[in-house]
Amino acid sequence: MKTLVIVSHPQIDESGTQNFLKASFPQSDEVAWHELSADFKVDEERQLLLDYQRIIFQFPLYWYSMPALFKKWVDEVFDGDFVFAGETPLANKELGLVVSTGIAQKQFQAGNGEAFTISEMLRPFEMMANKLGMNYLVPLMIYQFEYYTNEQKQGLVVEYQQYLMLKKFTFDDKLQWFIEELNQQEQTLLAESLAAKKVELENLSWQVQVMREDDGEG
Amino acid sequence: MKTLVIVSHPQIDESGTQNFLKASFPQSDEVAWHELSADFKVDEERQLLLDYQRIIFQFPLYWYSMPALFKKWVDEVFDGDFVFAGETPLANKELGLVVSTGIAQKQFQAGNGEAFTISEMLRPFEMMANKLGMNYLVPLMIYQFEYYTNEQKQGLVVEYQQYLMLKKFTFDDKLQWFIEELNQQEQTLLAESLAAKKVELENLSWQVQVMREDDGEG
Repeated sequence: MKTLVIVSHPQIDESGTQNFLKASFPQSDEVAWHELSADFKVDEERQLLLDYQRIIFQFPLYWYSMPALFKKWVDEVFDGDFVFAGETPLANKELGLVVSTGIAQKQFQAGNGEAFTISEMLRPFEMMANKLGMNYLVPLMIYQFEYYTNEQKQGLVVEYQQYLMLKKFTFDDKLQWFIEELNQQEQTLLAESLAAKKVELENLSWQVQVMREDDGEG
Repeated sequence: MKTLVIVSHPQIDESGTQNFLKASFPQSDEVAWHELSADFKVDEERQLLLDYQRIIFQFPLYWYSMPALFKKWVDEVFDGDFVFAGETPLANKELGLVVSTGIAQKQFQAGNGEAFTISEMLRPFEMMANKLGMNYLVPLMIYQFEYYTNEQKQGLVVEYQQYLMLKKFTFDDKLQWFIEELNQQEQTLLAESLAAKKVELENLSWQVQVMREDDGEG
């Protein structure tokens, strides 16, 4: 499966989230990172879409939707002459969203600040996918990345890579992905994390042993 | 109450709906028609917003949201430095939407083509109004204007003018509006329509009379 990640952010170089996602991007021929430029060519963009099976829109939330340049891309590239041409070229492809926001997750519910859920807020994208005959994937939401702990960041690397590469998002598929990653790439963040955990465990064991010995002497 | 109607349409001169709405626009100092140009000045737009109490976004639906240029306007004009400045300058104003679409109204429901309701589709605007402390008005939707009968068009003139000018949308207020309109402006479309109906009625009466006379002779 080939995945195209279309990225648009008005200040992409200054975005901690986007820089992190770029650094976390899978090293694979199956996945392409495509940053939108203001002078995109409609025909080239359409050809790109045809070449991939999973299309991901990656953007920061701007007023509960995509930034203006990305909307321009949608309005111009998804012209009726293209998307509803005889063969409906995007039908049966997948549409995913990777959306970052500075708002806390708990705000998106009835009775709290934003009052509505993410599912409701993103309905226009779901309706777009339906219209195009595309399979709408569960969005990958990134809330308040600036407050992420190192462990949350490691979790995001895994979640992001799986979102781009896994055919299905079942537990079995995710587990299989972990095993393959660990087997193939000893230098991945995951392996490093597990190695760090192993050292931590050995330190703990040693401390417990010392305490026991102290107890024995007391 | 002063109302600002911000209009954005990528091909506004060719749009039957927008031309009709422009022709239907109330002749009143209380209401301003403001077409977005691609080189709008953020400061001027902000000053305009401050001068009005009811803000209307008027646009054709593009992929279940506003056209890209209008989104650019939102992203740039509604910068945090402006909308969340100490005095939150847009708080307690009203936000209305006049949205046209080529899709039939009945499609917007579970089980039908678009699967979701207009209320769900427009959540991002409702969330925007909430965030800004604005009062979100029931959107005025225009479905498939190209198939409107003359009577539907007359109904739209009334609905549109009321949407821009009435303080409240209660039945009493709407009725009062009718009475004032009819009293004040003999040349309005409404008055013309009623005049036409009166002529039609007189013609019918005359025909009935002729038929009765025929009967009497028969």
